[in-house]
Amino acid sequence: MKVEKARPYVVKNLRYALNPSSIAIVGASRYPTKVGNKVIYELVKWGYRGKIYPVNPRADKILGFPCYKTLREIKDPVDLVFVAVPAHLVSSIVQDAVSIKAKMIVIATSAFKEIGRGELQNEITEYCRKNKLPLIGPNLVGMGSPYEHFNCGFIPYLPVEGPVAMISQSGANLLAALGTSQESHYGMSFFVGLGNKADVDFCEFIEYANEDPHTKCLAIYIEGLDSPEAFIDSCQKVDKPIVVIKVGRSKIGVKAAFAHTASENPNGDEYYDMVIEKAGAIRATTWQEFLDISLALGLQPPLKGDNIVMVTNGGGAGLLSCDHFERLGLPLRELKQISPMLEQRIRAYMPMFGSPLNPVDISGTASVIQYKGAFQQAFRDPNVHGVLGAICPTAVTDVMGTAKAAVEVYESCKELGKPFLMICQGGAECRDAILYLRDHQIPAYPTAEQAVNAMVALYRYGMKK
Amino acid sequence: MKVEKARPYVVKNLRYALNPSSIAIVGASRYPTKVGNKVIYELVKWGYRGKIYPVNPRADKILGFPCYKTLREIKDPVDLVFVAVPAHLVSSIVQDAVSIKAKMIVIATSAFKEIGRGELQNEITEYCRKNKLPLIGPNLVGMGSPYEHFNCGFIPYLPVEGPVAMISQSGANLLAALGTSQESHYGMSFFVGLGNKADVDFCEFIEYANEDPHTKCLAIYIEGLDSPEAFIDSCQKVDKPIVVIKVGRSKIGVKAAFAHTASENPNGDEYYDMVIEKAGAIRATTWQEFLDISLALGLQPPLKGDNIVMVTNGGGAGLLSCDHFERLGLPLRELKQISPMLEQRIRAYMPMFGSPLNPVDISGTASVIQYKGAFQQAFRDPNVHGVLGAICPTAVTDVMGTAKAAVEVYESCKELGKPFLMICQGGAECRDAILYLRDHQIPAYPTAEQAVNAMVALYRYGMKK
Repeated sequence: MKVEKARPYVVKNLRYALNPSSIAIVGASRYPTKVGNKVIYELVKWGYRGKIYPVNPRADKILGFPCYKTLREIKDPVDLVFVAVPAHLVSSIVQDAVSIKAKMIVIATSAFKEIGRGELQNEITEYCRKNKLPLIGPNLVGMGSPYEHFNCGFIPYLPVEGPVAMISQSGANLLAALGTSQESHYGMSFFVGLGNKADVDFCEFIEYANEDPHTKCLAIYIEGLDSPEAFIDSCQKVDKPIVVIKVGRSKIGVKAAFAHTASENPNGDEYYDMVIEKAGAIRATTWQEFLDISLALGLQPPLKGDNIVMVTNGGGAGLLSCDHFERLGLPLRELKQISPMLEQRIRAYMPMFGSPLNPVDISGTASVIQYKGAFQQAFRDPNVHGVLGAICPTAVTDVMGTAKAAVEVYESCKELGKPFLMICQGGAECRDAILYLRDHQIPAYPTAEQAVNAMVALYRYGMKK
Repeated sequence: MKVEKARPYVVKNLRYALNPSSIAIVGASRYPTKVGNKVIYELVKWGYRGKIYPVNPRADKILGFPCYKTLREIKDPVDLVFVAVPAHLVSSIVQDAVSIKAKMIVIATSAFKEIGRGELQNEITEYCRKNKLPLIGPNLVGMGSPYEHFNCGFIPYLPVEGPVAMISQSGANLLAALGTSQESHYGMSFFVGLGNKADVDFCEFIEYANEDPHTKCLAIYIEGLDSPEAFIDSCQKVDKPIVVIKVGRSKIGVKAAFAHTASENPNGDEYYDMVIEKAGAIRATTWQEFLDISLALGLQPPLKGDNIVMVTNGGGAGLLSCDHFERLGLPLRELKQISPMLEQRIRAYMPMFGSPLNPVDISGTASVIQYKGAFQQAFRDPNVHGVLGAICPTAVTDVMGTAKAAVEVYESCKELGKPFLMICQGGAECRDAILYLRDHQIPAYPTAEQAVNAMVALYRYGMKK
């Protein structure tokens, strides 16, 4: 339901959604395959440190926790009520939550507005608003934070710690991101699925993220905005990069977005281009791009000019990159155009058959020392704004050694405020190097185009600032 | 150097490049960090079954193999001469190779035309042509085939067995593909780096691939074509799908392509659009797309119409997909438009709050049985041309169980000749499911857009046929 602006009481209470001292799970189940069991299981598994109160009128204990027949039976204060009962039972649960003065209610249950029960959803929402009980959902997957060891929902993973707050209308895509986080060290500060966003809206989580000390970048997945003005207003208050992916732009997607999260899109896709532009956010097109550029914006400073130097041991990676830079409207310049002396200085770190054009091809025989020297020269040149490195493993490439050298150079040059991205294209050792680099704050990617997308996003953000 | 058409003696002899009974390595080295050592090491490591003759005038044995001072000293027949000596020594090696009647010579050495020594390269090439000794290279990384346990070059990996023959001008990108092959089960039949392609050209490997029984799809990475007519002519003879990525389209890329593999691109990029179109090949834009669509074309039949049904347990994956289908000009149709009864039949396999639009959202609670039923209904409907499945792991999703069910359905419906692709977006269990599916001939991808790119390529190929 529409909000005019982010409501302060909601923004304030969101900390109970992401870091509650106590949770009641209504619809808790004894059966391991049920959502109402998984929620508790995952809370325990990932190390939740607060109190857990299962609510189930027909069980004594669930996963070791004593059960309560109703919310009202719980005598201690409850920060968060998590609801996983069928839709027709939700109204009375909400009343109970108000009566016990819960700080926040999350309704995971589906089958509301998205299947035509908009009225029921609105009734519940109005009741919550009247009683100042912020409601997240319904029809959502959950939320959590790796910093709080908090995984609340039917969510099989907790992400690794990192800079990106993900605010997603889609549960499935949020889960995908969480899985990717573990697999590829896409670090997150917190995450939340908004579902139908009957009450709590994007704008409120956006303002919360702005205050959250772990969050360096906001990644927002939208199927439809009920309150575009509030969205724009809150984004404009944020002094952190915001990346948005908006789906449901296709003809069939408009219908599918309604069926999925009851999202209405009467205005067409150009309207969202305008909203996202006005919000000062960067729009991603594909899911991969959404992840790739938000990670870069979370880990690296903005690019303050367009003199990017690329250092690679593989000409092919260089070509894929320079083509993609030009495709995105940010063509690489030749080294001699960037800085007259840089070509000479960088030549010292490549064999005779290398190429100091830009991409700088230090050749397939490049050693860790040559990489290090070339990186250093590029960073230290005052005309250079950002550096892109690429590792293409030949039989003589020390992939992890190069990754370590990259981290050393980056750390010694950090105060220059120049972004550094890496490409590691290849097999298992490249995967390891990517994880190592990401763990050391350098966004690294398995393909050239992904890194170029990220660098261009750093440029676009730099130009907005 | 230009060829008018693929030369039969070259095409015939390429089997000695990919499956030789004996190899002489000229420039063999005792030092493990040297290319001339790595080549032998990798041959042995990956199980090469033929004879190995190291040539080095200053060593007795290398990695256990007795050394020869010169090629001429080897009295047994030599199928393949692999050259890794400095450029100025190459001419005399080539003469020796001719005199011992080698069947094929591969020159890995760099520093020829790409750094301005075109004359030397041309002299060597003309000598080889006069003596009908096909020359691959110079300035290349090597070649091999997992089916022959043959890894010949400075190549740290052998790919997994599969349908794609990769013919690449870039060594680094070829190596990346080989690494990806191992990591992501991108299966290959054989691979070769052409480097400067002084003599043996794309056209000859294309005709060889057409005859190769393991090859079901050709994936060709081009920096520049010297003989576009021969390329077109050979491609037109091929009755297998061909995917091309052509780099060096950007302004700086034209220069970089020359510096890399001495490729000349006087005609601009639209010229290559025309060449690739005339050749009947499909052009990929990004490296990821190149890999994704070649795998699909190698494993799956072409799509014979545009009635694609998508079955997903995550609405978000469905939305990303239907948006991307429309973006690529192949919008999904609603189920009821595809087949009047299909909606009813598929409804039996989803909860009340699922959505039978298309994408068919069988919801986050979907069981293996529901997936299986929905897949079967989609496959068996005579109006449906292809099926796209998506697994988005919620806490109740049996990811591997669903992957196994997908394989069962696919195998029971294989004779229908309808392509089947999968999306598995998430963490470690999705990675495992992707490998499992690929091992069972179903191209599976970690993001929606990758799978959609692949499906659209199957459609484009189907329309060409």
